[in-house]
Amino acid sequence: MTSTRRQALLAITSLPALAVTAAGAGAASSTEAPAKGGDPLPSWNDGQAKRAIVAFVEKVTKTGSPDFVPVPERIATFDNDGTLWAEQPLYFQLFFVLDRIKALAPQHPEWKDKEPFASVLKGDVKAALAGGEHGVVEMLVATHTGITTEEFTAVVKAWLASAKHPKTGMPYTGMVYQPMLEVLAYLRANGFKTFIVSGGGIEFIRGFAEQAYGIPPEQVVGSSVKTTFEVRGGTPVLVRAAALNFNDDHEGKPVGIHEHIGRRPVMAFGNSDGDLPMLQWTAAGPGARFCCYVHHTDAAREFEYDRQSSVGRLDKGLDEATAKGWTMASMKDDWKVVYPASTR
Amino acid sequence: MTSTRRQALLAITSLPALAVTAAGAGAASSTEAPAKGGDPLPSWNDGQAKRAIVAFVEKVTKTGSPDFVPVPERIATFDNDGTLWAEQPLYFQLFFVLDRIKALAPQHPEWKDKEPFASVLKGDVKAALAGGEHGVVEMLVATHTGITTEEFTAVVKAWLASAKHPKTGMPYTGMVYQPMLEVLAYLRANGFKTFIVSGGGIEFIRGFAEQAYGIPPEQVVGSSVKTTFEVRGGTPVLVRAAALNFNDDHEGKPVGIHEHIGRRPVMAFGNSDGDLPMLQWTAAGPGARFCCYVHHTDAAREFEYDRQSSVGRLDKGLDEATAKGWTMASMKDDWKVVYPASTR
Repeated sequence: MTSTRRQALLAITSLPALAVTAAGAGAASSTEAPAKGGDPLPSWNDGQAKRAIVAFVEKVTKTGSPDFVPVPERIATFDNDGTLWAEQPLYFQLFFVLDRIKALAPQHPEWKDKEPFASVLKGDVKAALAGGEHGVVEMLVATHTGITTEEFTAVVKAWLASAKHPKTGMPYTGMVYQPMLEVLAYLRANGFKTFIVSGGGIEFIRGFAEQAYGIPPEQVVGSSVKTTFEVRGGTPVLVRAAALNFNDDHEGKPVGIHEHIGRRPVMAFGNSDGDLPMLQWTAAGPGARFCCYVHHTDAAREFEYDRQSSVGRLDKGLDEATAKGWTMASMKDDWKVVYPASTR
Repeated sequence: MTSTRRQALLAITSLPALAVTAAGAGAASSTEAPAKGGDPLPSWNDGQAKRAIVAFVEKVTKTGSPDFVPVPERIATFDNDGTLWAEQPLYFQLFFVLDRIKALAPQHPEWKDKEPFASVLKGDVKAALAGGEHGVVEMLVATHTGITTEEFTAVVKAWLASAKHPKTGMPYTGMVYQPMLEVLAYLRANGFKTFIVSGGGIEFIRGFAEQAYGIPPEQVVGSSVKTTFEVRGGTPVLVRAAALNFNDDHEGKPVGIHEHIGRRPVMAFGNSDGDLPMLQWTAAGPGARFCCYVHHTDAAREFEYDRQSSVGRLDKGLDEATAKGWTMASMKDDWKVVYPASTR
């Protein structure tokens, strides 16, 4: 494999994430304010963030408002990891990689003596990741490529249906953020089309986005491997190749938005420096625009991290949000609950 | 420019199109049957094609039908050139290239003595295209790249607002097919999402698809150049680079559909061999599927071509459609009119 391919594939899971953080997950809160009649965001405290979201939606949807935005232009984009669901101590797609290696091991007896697979099979994640890029790419190729798109989707869905987060014991799709589900529903009720724009793999996210978020596959933008159309035994298939097609992170996010959506978002939500170009691109549009960072401030109910985190680092973005007056949603202060009642 | 880049850029306008065909455009018909009450396809004669379209839509949308398709899965894809608007004697995007060279000439005095630009400026299209690939790539680079996405879109829209087809004298957006506009509206009224999947440039098509077809930018899939995110003088921009990002033609169509839509179409419409993999991919899905070729059989009202044409060749596809029993929509026999009343 060439160096370019290696680098490219790594992008899909963003290597910095591989330094496992020490942050643990606190017990999920069991208190939740009942939804008030007519309150579209019942899991949000009545603070600056909630008021900013509601005020913005009201001004861009009110006919005759100087900030009115026609329905077809109501595009809202959301990062996924750390913005719509949790991302600690590793991006969930990396847990999928590790579990998948265990599942595939019987077909690969040579993995017992081959790193990083051997360490994964022994349950030593730190050692598996210690080898750095080369090993991670090998794991990605082994688990994400060489199969058809339909085979991959089936594997992702089966994993999501049974896998549990190693710290919380919750299913991964149970670790979506209830307050953000309310934002998604609130925006859609106001004529917005909601899109995911993620550095994660587009097909991995499509495996659960419709059920978890109400976001259909055609509204998911993400990183992707190259696929090729082949006719196998008379049946057309799309095969996932061991080469990156697109890295939808950092400067790639506005590019991915333009390629898939073709309009500039009116609202954008992220949580890390990887989302900064998306927020900059959104903010730079004419007329009213709304940028929001979800800030991980809640060590008790979720995780607490920003400038120093290897996963979901928020450093430059924190400075720019402050300078530009973007909305900061503090998980500790603005959210009454973190996860949905069904999984808390 | 490398050979790969050259080849890649060519893909956007599909070189075979460059052999100017001799087919002329007939005068547009002035007869049109009035829309009958309740007839969703009034511009279609009551033939096999119309009946097949209606029968299919009815069976997949009827609750309780064994062929019922839930609304989120009602995806219909349409080729653009030759399926939704005309494509003779050259793809319209190539007329844009030629006109654009004339518009840019004052900034390029050197073009007077440099082929293929010199021939374009003298109005000798055949000579301009005689130089083959190298010259075409030079023209594409000069007209499609090195500018921001917003600049490019503005240029496309301005051109479409004023340019006239050299044979019919009609505006290009007036050469959309009325019977296909009715199919688009009929499908949308039945819960389908309609997508364009074109070998043409995605940004070029987005310049008119919403107005002409009611298809928003996020439902256009097409060929694209690479774009890069840059901050120029404090303002974020997306710059169109002189390198192909994706060739959305032939085997690229199922790949583009998967990347952008993430679901297999239930219905697909095309007119050429370039659409064959899209139709094969559609037909191979489980459950009811509908594939249709628009057949250019009408020399008097439009153009007549199939197996021998350098633009929009339909040869292998014609054989496969016959073998598989796909629907053939003959422009001569199935369409009461070709273009909308407003432009005939």
